[in-house]
Amino acid sequence: MSFSPLVEQLLESLRVLPGVGPKTAQRMALHLLERERDGGRRLSQALTEAIERVGYCERCRTLTEEIQCGVCQDPRRDSALLCVVESPADMLAIEQAGGYRGQYFVLHGHLSPLDGIGPDDIGLDQLEARLSRETVSEIILATNPTVEGEATAHYIAEHLVGREARLSRLAYGVPMGGELEYVDGGTLSRAFQGRQPFSSE
Amino acid sequence: MSFSPLVEQLLESLRVLPGVGPKTAQRMALHLLERERDGGRRLSQALTEAIERVGYCERCRTLTEEIQCGVCQDPRRDSALLCVVESPADMLAIEQAGGYRGQYFVLHGHLSPLDGIGPDDIGLDQLEARLSRETVSEIILATNPTVEGEATAHYIAEHLVGREARLSRLAYGVPMGGELEYVDGGTLSRAFQGRQPFSSE
Repeated sequence: MSFSPLVEQLLESLRVLPGVGPKTAQRMALHLLERERDGGRRLSQALTEAIERVGYCERCRTLTEEIQCGVCQDPRRDSALLCVVESPADMLAIEQAGGYRGQYFVLHGHLSPLDGIGPDDIGLDQLEARLSRETVSEIILATNPTVEGEATAHYIAEHLVGREARLSRLAYGVPMGGELEYVDGGTLSRAFQGRQPFSSE
Repeated sequence: MSFSPLVEQLLESLRVLPGVGPKTAQRMALHLLERERDGGRRLSQALTEAIERVGYCERCRTLTEEIQCGVCQDPRRDSALLCVVESPADMLAIEQAGGYRGQYFVLHGHLSPLDGIGPDDIGLDQLEARLSRETVSEIILATNPTVEGEATAHYIAEHLVGREARLSRLAYGVPMGGELEYVDGGTLSRAFQGRQPFSSE
């Protein structure tokens, strides 16, 4: 025995959400049907609207329902600085950290030959085109500090030699507020290699 | 800075799901928009359909889009046995455990005066009506073994005195396959109180 067809169909569809297994899907479905039908209607509505209307910013490729995103449209941002990130979430994290006033380019992933994700899938042709169009003095490669992120950064770097733009990569080191005791070895050795002159002033 | 209005609206709406906080909502929204738009459409569709068409079985109150659920419609079920559960999930769990061939009544919650949930909110009037209509020989009170579930079971029991139907409650004891070492004290003492004569045959 199982739930009624429509409830089962809802259970199934909820499984599309990341990290949602059978049990969680059941809890979600029953919660919506027993206590949150209004919220469920709003969710269904918001989901359709977003899926039908949200596309990619023509300039930086982040998610937006407009032709260009808020950051790209902001005249106060420094267009000479270009930060390349893997996802809109990374872009948001950098914005929320504050301090960076340049522009962005979102890859929506990283190179992954095994999954058939090549240079064009992460918009490198579009990045090239943008660099030919705009004058960029520095490109900050802010892909994730993972094997794939590293490989992608290296590929982009090789790809862009000859351009006048300086290339940089986020610094590796110990995270602020953490305790050395709990920092992994790889990070620690990177922090040693990248140690900086210290002045007590 | 945040995401675009439509993306933010989706993040907000996803928060209606149980156990989904800001970070999870963001992961879900970006996953749907970047990799699973088809799945998202199906989810939105299934959600609307279920919310608009799934109601309560007129006989046992479980969730169904039909007038009566599959169990209530099944002529092979023993209508003299009535199992009272808190939620459709409990009903499903009992069905999947197998062995029970009677009928059900779903309370959709438990008595909770503080939250203003009284007898009628859990359908006791409907239960009464059903008992006057049908001949039930035993009512199995299968509410959760929690304070609220206990209180609800007791209330129902007091409420139904005078009826010819026998009242029973699920047995308390140590869970099968568990190790005594890890069973909580309350359960252990209940298991002692409820100990059964043992025959080696």
